[in-house]
Amino acid sequence: MEKVKLKTNTLKKEIINIFKKFGLNNNHASISANALINAELVGAYGHGLSRLKMYCDRISKKVINAKAKIKIRNISQSITHVDGNNAIGFVAADTAIKIAIKNAKKTGIALVAVKNSGHYGLSGYYAEQAVKKGLMVMVFTNAPPAVAPYGALKSLFGTNPICFGTPTGSKIPFILDTSISMINRGKIRVAAREGKRIPEGVALDKSGKPTTDPKKALEGVQLPIAGFRGSGLAWMVDILSGVITGGNHAGRVKDPFADFSGPQNIGHLFFVLKPNLFVGNSFNKRIKDNIKTIKKLPKIKGVKEILYPGQNKFNRFKNNLKKEINISKAVLKDLEYLRSI
Amino acid sequence: MEKVKLKTNTLKKEIINIFKKFGLNNNHASISANALINAELVGAYGHGLSRLKMYCDRISKKVINAKAKIKIRNISQSITHVDGNNAIGFVAADTAIKIAIKNAKKTGIALVAVKNSGHYGLSGYYAEQAVKKGLMVMVFTNAPPAVAPYGALKSLFGTNPICFGTPTGSKIPFILDTSISMINRGKIRVAAREGKRIPEGVALDKSGKPTTDPKKALEGVQLPIAGFRGSGLAWMVDILSGVITGGNHAGRVKDPFADFSGPQNIGHLFFVLKPNLFVGNSFNKRIKDNIKTIKKLPKIKGVKEILYPGQNKFNRFKNNLKKEINISKAVLKDLEYLRSI
Ligand SMILES: NC(=O)c1ccc[n+]([C@@H]2O[C@H](COP(=O)([O-])OP(=O)(O)OC[C@H]3O[C@@H](n4cnc5c(N)ncnc54)[C@H](O)[C@@H]3O)[C@@H](O)[C@H]2O)c1
Ligand SMILES: NC(=O)c1ccc[n+]([C@@H]2O[C@H](COP(=O)([O-])OP(=O)(O)OC[C@H]3O[C@@H](n4cnc5c(N)ncnc54)[C@H](O)[C@@H]3O)[C@@H](O)[C@H]2O)c1
Repeated sequence: MEKVKLKTNTLKKEIINIFKKFGLNNNHASISANALINAELVGAYGHGLSRLKMYCDRISKKVINAKAKIKIRNISQSITHVDGNNAIGFVAADTAIKIAIKNAKKTGIALVAVKNSGHYGLSGYYAEQAVKKGLMVMVFTNAPPAVAPYGALKSLFGTNPICFGTPTGSKIPFILDTSISMINRGKIRVAAREGKRIPEGVALDKSGKPTTDPKKALEGVQLPIAGFRGSGLAWMVDILSGVITGGNHAGRVKDPFADFSGPQNIGHLFFVLKPNLFVGNSFNKRIKDNIKTIKKLPKIKGVKEILYPGQNKFNRFKNNLKKEINISKAVLKDLEYLRSI
Repeated sequence: MEKVKLKTNTLKKEIINIFKKFGLNNNHASISANALINAELVGAYGHGLSRLKMYCDRISKKVINAKAKIKIRNISQSITHVDGNNAIGFVAADTAIKIAIKNAKKTGIALVAVKNSGHYGLSGYYAEQAVKKGLMVMVFTNAPPAVAPYGALKSLFGTNPICFGTPTGSKIPFILDTSISMINRGKIRVAAREGKRIPEGVALDKSGKPTTDPKKALEGVQLPIAGFRGSGLAWMVDILSGVITGGNHAGRVKDPFADFSGPQNIGHLFFVLKPNLFVGNSFNKRIKDNIKTIKKLPKIKGVKEILYPGQNKFNRFKNNLKKEINISKAVLKDLEYLRSI
């Protein structure tokens, strides 16, 4: 499909303007535009501009609160509860990770729970903020039903990513940021928009048959990684980000593209800690040694380098930053529409 | 293979006596015997009596310290560092989880890191202690090389289990306790001892070829779940339990059966929190609702009940508690030897 190229900064300004037109203040518009541009730059197109119109539609229909007043309740110096007031997910998550970073710097560990938030894009984007401040971090969020619990014929869990980040002693952070489904829902959605097929073994259609048609997969069920293991991990994420935070859970997070009957009330959980709590200054040496030792292992034929999680995304980001952003025809249509109204 | 039956209490007393003969005090012997019996009762034979002789051998060779003086360093009211002094893993882990429980009750959250420990059996056994006190818990430990990092031809990560537990509002705790390998190393070891084969697709032999021979698998490489996703999770566990705790990491944890050149210096990390921190008394209702909703989903043909993690083990435990424990010939031989010396 034909693509159009746009300069990153031009594009960012345009997205900020669009969000402001829909009622976000300058700060919230800018936080949201940065998150979307970042998704494009790391190649996570399913969480990038392909979602811009959806966010604007939700604001129009008042199921995202453009004028959200985020409430912060400090339970202790290390524990905070954030009520997102149905803000766009980017802003609620950005508020939370900044609190977590501040508290972890003070007390060594910080736990921040968020309720009444929405889809916030890439967990790794928030994890990176903590890692850039020299901190270790875990991030959990739930998401709309996409994956069937082990033994069930109906999807209920989201693709519920598990995210862990740590400083590495180099400028490329270690960011494991993995959904518990075989492939993430955003990729299936992009394939559907662009008329492509999806790999075998990642989804079933609504009658329970394997399918490579992304549209049928979106109506059907995605498969968790490793059967009951992945299903259990997805369940854990639903409890950590939904049950304990006050967010929706047990399959009640609404599909942001299809269900405008109310806000999503997604929950997130951020856990941040100082990596030198127990080993002091030797942390840097230890983590460098860890990565170096693993990278030196004999490799499988055809593998050039053993990568740690996050390295590939960092490299894509660095390369893409120099280039203009490729916009698909579908996204361009959305942009033109959003400009025009 | 022929089996012998023994009464649980008789067996426990005998194990306590054996450990005492090898120099553990009564308390440490009893903690260790309870953990081993529990593994038998939940059906985790690879972490049960099949390891008793190994522990005793390591004590004899002084690579487990029978007279360990465990050091506890409180970093804050919520953060503690435990130096296991090369105690048997059960005792170091038991010390740590008890501190974590006490601190989480006081401050809402507790993080306890352990270094200079050894193989401690089932993560879920410690998680259960916290859940029984109404707390939520995550447990991480590393283990000897068994799984190849994604892209590597040599195993380096342990089967590094990820464990999460939460109260459920019923007496059966939710305990997800899953290794990141397709099957756990203990099961391969039991298959090897008992002359059985292992499933396809879980391991490669030392030349990189798929194998169903447990002995070849033990010399070769176990496969992580879901390629780079599982490999990343194993790496995360190595960092959380090894790099930050002061334990061994990056493949340096010694195989307890094969390498007596020094202590294992395994690291563990325990994170405990009050599940009602953010939603107060409604936690109980929320978690019950979560589990009930998931259990009510339409089921795949042939599936009687959707189980939450930990349910199966709890049921096995309950059933087995009424019966005598089945001892394999190999374990009986070990017991007879340990009695005799
Ligand atoms: N907000 C939501 O509702 C939601 C839901 C699901 C996913 N997501 C996001 O979508 C993004 C993509 O998820 P995904 O699971 O498709 O990611 P992915 O499959 O691209 O990568 C998963 C992880 O594996 C690592 N990885 C990839 N290739 C590797 C290799 N060759 N060697 C070593 N490591 C490698 C990556 O760095 C990453 O940490 C994530 O950022 C996630 O947070 C968001
Ligand atoms: N100390 C160590 O070095 C070490 C290393 C690896 C594993 N282990 C321990 O070994 C034990 C076994 O690990 P494993 O990975 O083989 O466990 P497993 O495969 O038996 O189970 C993994 C998880 O899935 C759940 N489960 C199983 N069947 C299910 C079903 N039908 N529906 C829903 N959930 C289901 C279980 O309750 C468990 O939580 C664990 O307790 C682990 O801590 C210890």
